[in-house]
This record gives sequence, C-alpha cells and structure tokens, in this order.
Amino acid sequence: MRGVVMHKAGDVRVEEREDPKIIEPTDAIIRLSATCICGSDLWPYRGIEPVDHTIMGHEYVGVVEEVGDDVKNVKVGDFVVGSFVMSDNTCEICRDGFQSKCVHAVFATTVGTQAEKARIPLADGTLVATPGQPDPELIPALLAASDVLGTGWFAADAAQAGRGKTVAVVGDGAVGLMAILAAKELGAERIIAMSRHPERQKLARYYGATDIVEERGEEGVAKIKELTGGLGAHSVVEAVGTQESFMQAVGATRGGGHLGYVGVNYDVKIPGIELFFAGIHTLGGPAPVRRFLPDLIQLIWDRKIDPGKVFDLTLPLDQAPEGYKAMDERRATKVLLTL
Amino acid sequence: MRGVVMHKAGDVRVEEREDPKIIEPTDAIIRLSATCICGSDLWPYRGIEPVDHTIMGHEYVGVVEEVGDDVKNVKVGDFVVGSFVMSDNTCEICRDGFQSKCVHAVFATTVGTQAEKARIPLADGTLVATPGQPDPELIPALLAASDVLGTGWFAADAAQAGRGKTVAVVGDGAVGLMAILAAKELGAERIIAMSRHPERQKLARYYGATDIVEERGEEGVAKIKELTGGLGAHSVVEAVGTQESFMQAVGATRGGGHLGYVGVNYDVKIPGIELFFAGIHTLGGPAPVRRFLPDLIQLIWDRKIDPGKVFDLTLPLDQAPEGYKAMDERRATKVLLTL
Repeated sequence: MRGVVMHKAGDVRVEEREDPKIIEPTDAIIRLSATCICGSDLWPYRGIEPVDHTIMGHEYVGVVEEVGDDVKNVKVGDFVVGSFVMSDNTCEICRDGFQSKCVHAVFATTVGTQAEKARIPLADGTLVATPGQPDPELIPALLAASDVLGTGWFAADAAQAGRGKTVAVVGDGAVGLMAILAAKELGAERIIAMSRHPERQKLARYYGATDIVEERGEEGVAKIKELTGGLGAHSVVEAVGTQESFMQAVGATRGGGHLGYVGVNYDVKIPGIELFFAGIHTLGGPAPVRRFLPDLIQLIWDRKIDPGKVFDLTLPLDQAPEGYKAMDERRATKVLLTL
Repeated sequence: MRGVVMHKAGDVRVEEREDPKIIEPTDAIIRLSATCICGSDLWPYRGIEPVDHTIMGHEYVGVVEEVGDDVKNVKVGDFVVGSFVMSDNTCEICRDGFQSKCVHAVFATTVGTQAEKARIPLADGTLVATPGQPDPELIPALLAASDVLGTGWFAADAAQAGRGKTVAVVGDGAVGLMAILAAKELGAERIIAMSRHPERQKLARYYGATDIVEERGEEGVAKIKELTGGLGAHSVVEAVGTQESFMQAVGATRGGGHLGYVGVNYDVKIPGIELFFAGIHTLGGPAPVRRFLPDLIQLIWDRKIDPGKVFDLTLPLDQAPEGYKAMDERRATKVLLTL
C-alpha cells in the first residue's frame, strides 16, 4: 500500500509500505476513506522534533476490512471513526473519561494513518461505528472528529465553557476553531477569538466567535481584561502551544477561572509563581477524544455541526508533500488527503 | 503597641510600633488574642525573598475594638477570625468562591499581624465572628483557621479529595497536616502522607493518614504508583513548593486526577510538556480561606476537628525571634505567639 514517510525535516514522501496485518486479537484493519495532516506534524517537519524515516499520520476514518478474534464492537464493513490515541476504554482511567491516559494507550502516530490502510490496536475500545455508511459530504466532518474537533471540544470542556460564560480562545488554527465551535455548542455567551489572520477570523465568526482580539502577549491579556470588566475570561482555551501563548492564556483567565490547553512545545517552562498567583484551574493533555466521539458523530450525522470546514485544502494522498508545504507556509489551515 | 519587624534576613525584633487607626470606613481594629509564624515567613528569614525592616504576620484572631462607619457584619466586642487575604466578599470573583483573588484583595502581610493590634481592611467581607467568646483552649484551632487550616482545606478541596478517593499529600508541614485533616473530613478512603520526619508522621496519622511514604522525587512517585495499582493517586496536595516537590506531585497524580497546590517558590519552572502529558487537573493559588471560614469555625466550635495541634511551640509575642529560629531549624512545625 502507499503511505507517507518523513525522511527528515522538510522531506516528506509517499512510498510503498507493507500492508498492515492483524497482530493482536484485539486489532482491526481499516481501509481509510480519508486522512489528514495535523498541525503537530509540522513540529518534525520544521525540525523542532526529531524525525528519521518516520511513518506519519494519526487521524483516520474508514471501513473495517478485517478484525481480530476478540473484536466485538465493530465488524467488517462498518464505517468507523477512531481517536488519535487507542484505548481499551475499560480501565479505571478510561472509565473516568481520560482514554488518552488509558493504561494500555497506544498513540496512532505509531500506526501512521497517512496511508491506504491502518492497523488499529484495541479496536473495541477505540473505534466508533457511524449509524450507517456516511454521505461523502460528511467524511471531512467525521475525519475532523478523530482529532481536531475532539481536541477542540475537550479544550472547551476542560475550560468549562458553557452557559453564561465568556470564553477566550488563544490560537486560530484548526483546534482553536473547533474549540470555538464547541464553546458555542456548549452554550457560551461570548466567545473571543484571538487571531490576526483575516481568513481565519472569518471562519472563527462562522463557528461562533462574537469578538476578535488581534493583540498578543501582554497586550492581548490587557485587551481580554478590557472586554471583561477587568476580570479576565471565565474560560480560556490555549491552542497554540508556545511560551508566549501559554502565558497569554494564563493571564487572560480570571481568578478561579478555567484554562484548557491541548498542546505545548518542548521549550515551554511555566513560571510556577505566575501560575500560582493567577489562582486558576487548568486541565490539559492529549485529548481523550474517545470520550466525546459518540456524541460528536451524532451531532455530525444530524448535521448540527459542520467541523469539516476546517479543511481548506484537499489533495490526493500522493500529493501529501504539497499538503505539508501548504500548511508549513500557512497557505492552508488543515489539509485533507483523499484516497 | 508591640509588633514584630524583620530588619533583614535572620534578624527579627519585637519593637514598639504605632497603634493602628481606622483609615477607611470599611476598616476594623482588632486586639489580637493570638498570632503565629507561618512557613512562608521563613522565605525572607532565609534570604530567599527580599526583606527590609518589614512588619510581619498575616494570621490573626482577636476581639473587635473599633469599627469604621460602614462596617455592619461585625461589632465591637465580637471575637473574630479572618483570612490572610482581605476581600470585599461581594465582587464577582468572591461570589465564585475565590476571595483571595477579590478585585479589592489586600494581603494581610501589609498589615503585619504579629502585633498586639491590627487594622483589618474590608472588615465586613473578611472577618467572621465566632458564635460567642471562645474557650481559651479553642483559640489555637481558630487561629489555625486563619491560614494553615483554611489553606490545607482549600488544597484538599482543589485536589477533589472526597469519598472513595486516594489522596497523596506532599509535605508534612502545618499546611500538609491540615490537608490530611481536610481529606479525612471530606471522606477520603485512603490518605498517603509523604513525610520522613517521625514526629510529623505521628501527627499525620493522628489527623487521618493511612499510609506513610518516605521516598521523594521519582522514588516517591514510584511508591505512590505501587500503592495505587500503577495508576497514581486520584487527588494530590502539594504543600512544599519546591521544584522537586511540585514535579513529585505532578507525577503522583493519575491521568485525569486532581492536583491542588498552595505555594511555590520563585525558582519553580514547570516543564510544560511534562504537565501536558500528565493529563491532570490543577488548581492552586493563595487559598480563598474566606470561602471555608464559616464552616471551619463551626467544625472547631463543635469540637469536630482539632487543628490546633499543629502548633507545637507556644511563646509570648516578645519571644518571636526564638519562634522564627525554632521553625527555621525545624525544631517546631508551627509557633503560636500569645498576647
């Protein structure tokens, strides 16, 4: 089969890779209907994280082709969506809703889903079948649920976005936009998108942003305070992951408020004293997308949300290198790869 | 009146200070019945924080001597307990239970309550009168409520200690011990005290610890994991405030668990990536003691809790210098100063 391999920073190729096979009786093999490139794939692409002939991709939707002997929840022919972290969904941590910290967690990066097929470990705990075969127009939205929508939703949930709340979202990438969508669905009263990119501001407003703040860092914090009677936002989502954006998010959160963060790079060092005197709740980590998947799939199936719009460039798998380039150069927010 | 002044690191004196006067109509003047030395007073004593002829003390109980024209909730003659942060208790942040982040917050360190009298700003929002004049034996417990009990309680609450939970407490100082008391009152199933000091282990067990872990750092984390089926504790309280103890607390918290922290020193830098992959809730900051004060006073009044035992050395105010020395040399956990 064909699949994406990153030879080194900046060098992405589509190559012939070995077809996946059932290894454990809890595995399933899926044939992908679509896959995509994640903002986090740019870290190795830009040389910020190590990479060496690495298979790529951790987002996926597709049709089950084969299941191991122990798989009971999905069957051959099912159209499925899975999280970017495979989980057994039965351990104590999973039952508490933190499937990304499952005691048996496997990151889908080790599977490399930018490919025609993928082996999905822990299929029963990971894959969720859609109510039927989806219309092709739903596929981008379902693919978004696999990571960016699930991650943005978790971030908004972690920030306790909800009725009567003012929510600030730091970052206008795909995850930030999905956090805006989630905050709106969760009933937030006011949603402030921190963005200085006109096209993304438009999309932010489409998904529910009521205000746009272009300032960053301390100026951005001052602006959020100005918009919230000096207090800061009840709920802040951090969806960038740099030192500046993280501290901007801390500063934008009111005392006793909630900060949800869904990615930080290796250089971020949080001054303990600043976090302490902020007096805020924080919750972050790789999103337990599996917790939200059944509800998200239903919302998509019922056409109540339209997360597929975050894909602003669609290319065939073979043109993955161009997709990486477009995202790296910020010509695209998120690239969908067709199969 | 007499009051404590720290001239420079290690140089504490009891001197004649000007009697406090009503400045704002929301002030009250109290005559202290007792005061004490806080673990945080040791930071400047040890030269870790700057100090220059600074008035000291932020914990207090006493009798109201005079009130400003706008004070309605307490009257002359009332016995009162107040938080170490004065708050209006009416602003939006206070109403959310985060009085230590009140928009009008005043830290009691600026008042210097290691003295015969103190001016308490925002008296109505800060002071809570006891149901009557307390028996002298209750005074240490009521004084503890002013900071260490309120802070330990907040930490346990922030860590969501409660029914069925395993709680680990990093630190066996007064606040750690009070967090153990709180965890027990809140119904925790298992309380692990991280302590290597035999006397404090005894007190930890008295307050409700079911297990003691003497290991620190990575070994301490491994031990907590071993005691919790490999998962980590549901709830972790960090009550030391160093880099090592903070990261020990992060590591001891299970995925999706809750970490409550109530002090960090200026050198703590939290590696963002470690906090991220821990996948935990955190809540910290100067404790909003005022939120808990009415309940804590009632528990003490009804003799359901006995936080006064954290004071293991009692000295007259005039011997404050010896009190600082005893705490600095770890001969005392916490020193009560009588008046």
